[in-house]
Order: sequence, then C-alpha cells, then structure tokens
Amino acid sequence: MRVILPAGTTETALIDGISAAGASPDLMEHTPSADVEILAYGEPTMAPVTPVSPNGCPTPAAVTRAVREVIDFDVSVVDAGLAQPTGAPTVDLGVEPGADIRDPVAVPDTRAIFDRAHAYGASLPDDELLIGETVPGGTTTALGVLTALGEPAGVSSSLPKNPIERKRQVVDEALAASDASAGSFDGRPLEAIRAVGDPVQATVAGIAAGALESGIDVTLAGGTQMVAVATVLRHAGVDAPFSIATTSFVEREQGDQLGEACYRLNCQLTVTDPGFDARDHVSMKRYCAGVAKEGVAMGGALSLVPDERMESVLDRFETVCGRLGIEDDGGSGSENGNTNEPANSTPEDDRAP
Amino acid sequence: MRVILPAGTTETALIDGISAAGASPDLMEHTPSADVEILAYGEPTMAPVTPVSPNGCPTPAAVTRAVREVIDFDVSVVDAGLAQPTGAPTVDLGVEPGADIRDPVAVPDTRAIFDRAHAYGASLPDDELLIGETVPGGTTTALGVLTALGEPAGVSSSLPKNPIERKRQVVDEALAASDASAGSFDGRPLEAIRAVGDPVQATVAGIAAGALESGIDVTLAGGTQMVAVATVLRHAGVDAPFSIATTSFVEREQGDQLGEACYRLNCQLTVTDPGFDARDHVSMKRYCAGVAKEGVAMGGALSLVPDERMESVLDRFETVCGRLGIEDDGGSGSENGNTNEPANSTPEDDRAP
Repeated sequence: MRVILPAGTTETALIDGISAAGASPDLMEHTPSADVEILAYGEPTMAPVTPVSPNGCPTPAAVTRAVREVIDFDVSVVDAGLAQPTGAPTVDLGVEPGADIRDPVAVPDTRAIFDRAHAYGASLPDDELLIGETVPGGTTTALGVLTALGEPAGVSSSLPKNPIERKRQVVDEALAASDASAGSFDGRPLEAIRAVGDPVQATVAGIAAGALESGIDVTLAGGTQMVAVATVLRHAGVDAPFSIATTSFVEREQGDQLGEACYRLNCQLTVTDPGFDARDHVSMKRYCAGVAKEGVAMGGALSLVPDERMESVLDRFETVCGRLGIEDDGGSGSENGNTNEPANSTPEDDRAP
Repeated sequence: MRVILPAGTTETALIDGISAAGASPDLMEHTPSADVEILAYGEPTMAPVTPVSPNGCPTPAAVTRAVREVIDFDVSVVDAGLAQPTGAPTVDLGVEPGADIRDPVAVPDTRAIFDRAHAYGASLPDDELLIGETVPGGTTTALGVLTALGEPAGVSSSLPKNPIERKRQVVDEALAASDASAGSFDGRPLEAIRAVGDPVQATVAGIAAGALESGIDVTLAGGTQMVAVATVLRHAGVDAPFSIATTSFVEREQGDQLGEACYRLNCQLTVTDPGFDARDHVSMKRYCAGVAKEGVAMGGALSLVPDERMESVLDRFETVCGRLGIEDDGGSGSENGNTNEPANSTPEDDRAP
C-alpha cells in the first residue's frame, strides 16, 4: 500500500476569517511543509513550526505518522504548490501555489497540472493507492468547486464551530470574480478548479484519474475535500469505482450528508473511529471535541489499521505528541490545559477535512 | 535506519572513454533519475530508461531495492543535480548538475551546496544514517578530488577492465584547467570539489558533516567514491568516527588499497559479499565478473541484511530483475546470453563504485 500526499498552499488561506484567528500568514505557509516532514521523519526538521490548532491540538499528520510507525506504509509526497521549503522528499510536478479564489483565476495552469499528475499516477506500479492532501484553507476551495459544479454537498471544518457562512460568502465573491455562479461550471471541472479551486485538487484529481486508468485501486483519503475531488472526477467523466476513507470526526459533523454525497457520486465510503474517546490524553480529547477532524490522509491511514493494532496506534500517537512537544495535561482535557505548547506553533485553520 | 541517496549528474560523464561506449548522452542523463525510481517504486516509472550495463547487467539500484523489499528501510532521495525529471520524491536542496571537470570550475556553488546539505543532515532525527550516491562518471570525479587533495587512493570502475589511465589523463587536464596540480588543494576540500569534483560529493559530505555534528551515526555507502568523500571530510577537519560500507566486488578489484585508505582516514570498513557466486542467475554472474560492483548504496544496504535473510535478498533480486525486463538466460552466464534486454536500455558507465 502506498500513500500519496499532495501538499500545497493558496492565498485563499490568508482570507480573514478563513484561517484561524491569530495565525500569522508567514507561519501558516509552513504548515504543509511541516506536515510532510512529520510524515517522513516523525517530527518537523527544516520547517520552523509544529502545526497545532489554536488550543494546541496537533496536526492530523501526527496521527498519520503514528499509524505509519505501527503498520508501515510507503509514502510519496507530491509538491502540489508548497510555498516554503521542506526537508521531506517530494515529487516535483512543477505545481505553483494557488491564488486567492476571489481573483479571476485561482489556478492558472490547472490543465497542465492535471495532465502531469495524470502521467505520474498512471506511471505507478502499485496495486492500491491512498491519496490524501494537506492544504490550508482547503475546505473553502472545496466549497468553491462543489458550488461551481452545482453539487449540493457541504464542507467540514477543523474548527469545532464551522465558519460555513463566511466560506459561502467567500465562494460567492469568488464565483462573481470569475463571472460565474453556482452550477455554471457543470461538466467542466478543470475550469471550476481554475476559477475557484486550488492546485492540490488538480493534483489529487490527476493522480487519481491516471491511476484508475492504469487499473490501480484508488482511495481518496479525506473528508469533504475529497468529496469535492470525487465530484471533479465524476464531472470529468471518470466512471471507474473508487472509495473515500475518512474519520468518524468528519462523519459526526456532517451527519447523513457525507454518505448521501458518496452515494450520489457512486463512491464507497469508509469511516474509521480510532477510539480516542477511551483515552484521557489531551490531544485525543480535542479531536473528540471536533478540533482538526481529518487531513494529511488521517482517515485513510486509520482505515488500514487492523482492529487489534489500534491500541498500539493510540500509544504511538501519544509518543508522537510528546516528540512534537505536546505533552498530556494529566487528563483534565481542559481547552486551556496544555502548558507545553511548542514554542513555534502555528494555529491550524479549516484546512483539514 | 534511514538510507539517504543523493543523486546527480555531471558533464564529466559525457567525456569520451569515461562513459561506456555506445551510451547516448541523452539516455545516460536519465540513469540517476531511473535509479531512484527503482529504489522508490521497484521499477522505473517516469524515466524512459532501465539502467543496465552494455551487456545487460542491471544497475545496483536493483540490488538495493531487493534488500529494501526484504528488510525494509526508509529512503530519502536528495536531488544533488539531476538533469532529467524523476517520478521519485526528492529533497530539494537547490543543487544543479555539475560541469565538466576540465572546465575551470566544475561545481560553482560548492560551499552553498555543502552548507544546505549540512543543515539538512543536522536536522534529521534519526540515530543512524547510511548515505549512498548515484552519479554517472562518479569515479572520475572521485579521482579528481583524491588527486587534488594529495591522497594516494585509487578508484574503482563499474567495468571489469578499469579505464584508469583515461581517468588519470582527464584528471590531469582538469587540474591544469583549474591552475592546480596533485595535492595543491591539501586542506581545502571544498575548493577541490569546486575545481575537479561533482555536486554529489558536496551533498554527501555536507549531509554527513551535519549529521555527525548532531551525533548521528553515519555510514558512507559506497566504494572508492566514498573514500573520496571521507577524504573531503577529514580535510575539512571532521574528526568524528564514521564508517564506509561497500561490496566484496569493489574489495576484490581494489585489493589492500581499500583497507589501507580507510585505515589512513580512520574509517571503519565493512565489506559485504552477497554470495552471488552460489547462483546461476545471469545478473549475479555479471556482478561476479566485475560488472557494476557498487553504487546506489548497494554495499551499505547489503550490510544491513542478517545472514539468515541473504537468500531471500537473492530471491528478491531475481524478482526485481524480472520486473526490469532482465530475465535469466538459463544459467549459461555468457556475456552475450541475455536475450531479454529492456527495450530502452542505457549502458552504464563507470559511475558505480
């Protein structure tokens, strides 16, 4: 099993109210670069930040890494528009960071990105791929593409209280800036990404389409961002079967919507509950409270864990948290109880699910 | 255990008589890009070649991959001057391909490469690193640096008959073009690389120096090319202990010279014989006949294999050869017996050891 992780950035993430309060743009740009270092090495190496939410909840990369340390899988990170250097090895497909979706064009070279990603996906000798993502602001661009394609699905948030109205307002502005409206890109998914999407969507869609064409089993690892990519694939005429794998945290927020969207898209849906509620560790409590929820292929990675090894994954997650400077607060689980926040933390925004 | 693999190219490899006869420069440039794909995915993916010697002996990347499929280790490929795209994930340290060492300057930004590689090596959380290389023409640039630093060590070849006189002639021309002579860069190793070396040497030396400074155990995985890097490190004042791990094929060619060089350099030497002589597979026979010998961290990877698993590595090597389109010829072992050469083969030059 190989996990492919396209990682990128956009200026959309910098829109006020989209990114978490207090995040400095300079630091947030480092989040995906740090995430992929955590996945590759177990902790940030060259990146100057440890990605955590405003209340100290660690990035989903820490969960995915914990799974990797228990069951081991190959990882190939794809540079899908990183804005800052990373010490992790990345596949170079020549992808640049995305613009603000309220600009007339969000991803100028969508077609070229899709084509190169398609060639990469088609080239892989694997039997099965899990494809994840890490991109700040990713649920807003997901809402952009879903709206542009006329799909009714909603989007998730890494915040317990989803700023969905703010996202809708941004997407409305974005569509207007592209002389478009809800549904006006029906059947033209790459144009939808170009207008109101992000480069990670183009990369994930391209890799998935290429891999499916080569007969590789594909699972999109993520929540509503992957519903957006699935919608792109179906609007692009890809009718091969594929799956979406996400976390119980996304399902809990989305309710029936998630399953209904997957049913409409003819995607199998796998939801994994890691059982964080059985532990007192502050990071797990925060996930249970609806922080972070998904991202960096977390749900897909968890779906690979045999039941009898999930306890080992939770143990390992605690170890990874310690390595990241996020110690347990003794089980109080208070939202302000984390006294060991990493020195160089950056708040995590609604990038994950 | 992590294997770091700096991969690069130089125009030195294009010098007549250095690269194997019949290699088209266009194809040889792809060799390191294909090698790292084999390491990452098990076969070339985006690269248009399968690297084999003129008589069909597969690249040492096939051996290293076979080891990886048996004992599993993390791999981080570093782009140390690739000239052609690769589908493998690579760490980007901003390294460009090297020039011809007969130009006045072979590696213009040696100091900057070394410094960035040093920061990367120092950033890694690992306890132990194996650092290998893949760079066509690498033994010639190794001879260049050894000569420039006044070290008496000889260099190996991936060819059964080492074109050592041709290499010496090229190195003499190279030193003259830099207004230098044997030993004139004594104590100035980065200037030696700048004048007559290659960017992979600067990258390996920088990563090793940074890692050693961070207290990481370092093994240089390779033959005489790694003797050259070890010499660079000692001339740079790095006095921490480290090891060199190579194959029995290099030792057989170099005789006592190899051990003597390691003794002078205060490096522990590990030599591993994979036992290819016990099998009839044509690729193993060719290694036993002195083709390829080393490269792509082969000797270092083999040193990680417990004795009782070496047979599994040999089985897997046969599988990898099949995947690369190199089938056994039924055990005749004749130099022309391989009737299943890959369609897009490129002869391998003296890049390996």
